[in-house]
Amino acid sequence: MRDGIIMLGHGSGGKMTSDLLAKVILPGLYAGGEIPELEDCAQLPLPAGNICFTTDSYVVDPFIFPGGDIGDLAINGTINDLAMGGARPLYISVGFVLEEGLPVEDFKVALKSMNRAARGAGVKIACGDTKVVPRGRGDKIFINTSGIGLARNGVTIGSRNARPGDRMIINGSIADHGIAIMSVREGLRFDSPVVSDTAALHTLVDALFDAGVEVHVMRDPTRGGLATVAVEIAESAGVGIRLDERAIPMTPAVAGACEVLGLDPMYVANEGKMIILTPERDAQKALDVMRNHPLGKDAAIIGEVYETERPKVTVTSSVGGTRIVNKLPGELLPRIC
Amino acid sequence: MRDGIIMLGHGSGGKMTSDLLAKVILPGLYAGGEIPELEDCAQLPLPAGNICFTTDSYVVDPFIFPGGDIGDLAINGTINDLAMGGARPLYISVGFVLEEGLPVEDFKVALKSMNRAARGAGVKIACGDTKVVPRGRGDKIFINTSGIGLARNGVTIGSRNARPGDRMIINGSIADHGIAIMSVREGLRFDSPVVSDTAALHTLVDALFDAGVEVHVMRDPTRGGLATVAVEIAESAGVGIRLDERAIPMTPAVAGACEVLGLDPMYVANEGKMIILTPERDAQKALDVMRNHPLGKDAAIIGEVYETERPKVTVTSSVGGTRIVNKLPGELLPRIC
Repeated sequence: MRDGIIMLGHGSGGKMTSDLLAKVILPGLYAGGEIPELEDCAQLPLPAGNICFTTDSYVVDPFIFPGGDIGDLAINGTINDLAMGGARPLYISVGFVLEEGLPVEDFKVALKSMNRAARGAGVKIACGDTKVVPRGRGDKIFINTSGIGLARNGVTIGSRNARPGDRMIINGSIADHGIAIMSVREGLRFDSPVVSDTAALHTLVDALFDAGVEVHVMRDPTRGGLATVAVEIAESAGVGIRLDERAIPMTPAVAGACEVLGLDPMYVANEGKMIILTPERDAQKALDVMRNHPLGKDAAIIGEVYETERPKVTVTSSVGGTRIVNKLPGELLPRIC
Repeated sequence: MRDGIIMLGHGSGGKMTSDLLAKVILPGLYAGGEIPELEDCAQLPLPAGNICFTTDSYVVDPFIFPGGDIGDLAINGTINDLAMGGARPLYISVGFVLEEGLPVEDFKVALKSMNRAARGAGVKIACGDTKVVPRGRGDKIFINTSGIGLARNGVTIGSRNARPGDRMIINGSIADHGIAIMSVREGLRFDSPVVSDTAALHTLVDALFDAGVEVHVMRDPTRGGLATVAVEIAESAGVGIRLDERAIPMTPAVAGACEVLGLDPMYVANEGKMIILTPERDAQKALDVMRNHPLGKDAAIIGEVYETERPKVTVTSSVGGTRIVNKLPGELLPRIC
């Protein structure tokens, strides 16, 4: 830990976050015990059946943005963490840390979104807590949501299950959420405004399982973006992943904004996107299922897994060159989730 | 909502918090649906059996204090919320919101405490999340812990179950936690230092149930203190509660500090205390069980429930007078949990 202090990059979801987890948080929390596998969601044995349990804090700034606000982000994000674990989301807890001086009207905007998102997704907000901190000791509103879901019988998905030959499929365009946030901060205007893709993905997951698609890995590329998730999978499974940049869906507005802002969209956060890895024989079926779902109309096969001695992710660019992709090294977009 | 803004008192656990919940949070979160009963913990139907699920954020300042730190506070507090719901704590989630610049060594103190508290209590930290906010947009460290417990079969406890004739029993001295925090802030020194009472109470709860004590109500008087919890019970059950000030355990150091600071210990937070309401016939047994447990050595019967038309709480003072007790009206001790 350079300088012995927490830096912004430690919360970026990239390399520095991995370091903090591996060197500080996990050894601290699990001293003397077994460090659990890191997945989006913990599958927990219960006397009769298994549940999934997950937690996430939301500190996005600005907390109201084109396409959503911190409220639906917090509900959808935790639903997605459960869905990515193969679970059916059931219950969500809500913990608010509010800054003194927050206008109640602004708070109501977030509450309304939470209500709508939870009802729309069929999950129940089961419990909550509210704290207020003095002006200048918080930032308007932070929300923690924890979630419980029912595990699917016989389903084991996890980054370590990626296999050579697997195809990577994404359900639509990347970088919308992060660019929506950044464009507000930077005062950018576009002919067609960029809006966050915040959405609950569990019904899309249901559709894949209902169709009998064999899913090896399922992840939502939030903080750290598609690149970071791909690297995490490659390292976890000990495989190579080849991505085809030309196949990765992106809107012209987002592409333009990334140019202007000097950002690589592969590292920009998404809040309504998921990738799956599925054997080649199921790839077309998975693609068809996604494209028939409202949240997967622009789904595409964007890469494949291959055997290699040194796990890595490469991207074939639109002009034909190939580059190696690493995890987000530090802070790209502070507090976009 | 006066002025339309969030004020510190909204997080105090007292009257303003009740107002915010009733007028803003619950109508927002549960618009169009049924507002659930407010207990420390949500009991959730699952296909086979019931679980309990609870959440709490910890924003205590200073976050390291005599007798503990934010880490064991966060673990013990969530264990206690589950235990007060009659559940056996199983799993805890951990969500950190860290301020840029937090010394890693300080963070490690909290992590170590969480580990020790969780292992000591036999609960598993099941999942976690870490965010970092810019310097000046947080306050060193906030922790959300959410918890899942297994509901006891056939046990229904809740504030509404208080019955005339019930005795109120507390497991020991009040106000230790809040005074430990305040004494650091105010730079007070005592001959015998006041230390926080932070502790996990689930084994004490186990002992009561194992002994067959009939428990009508079980609560931990944290924010808002004993007085606020007593008023909440009286209002919920539509009963009167008569407390005997002379019977309420308190250390001389805490009594002295409350004098110096001008605080009513009835409103000061506790983090290792619980009260139960039990029928008169079980009161002596409950007292004996508590006194035989390390966390109940100073247990005492401190009051009783009576029938009344207008729910209220009265306290008979040490000089014989009687006063009416209300909920904490605004902010007494900011951020002591």
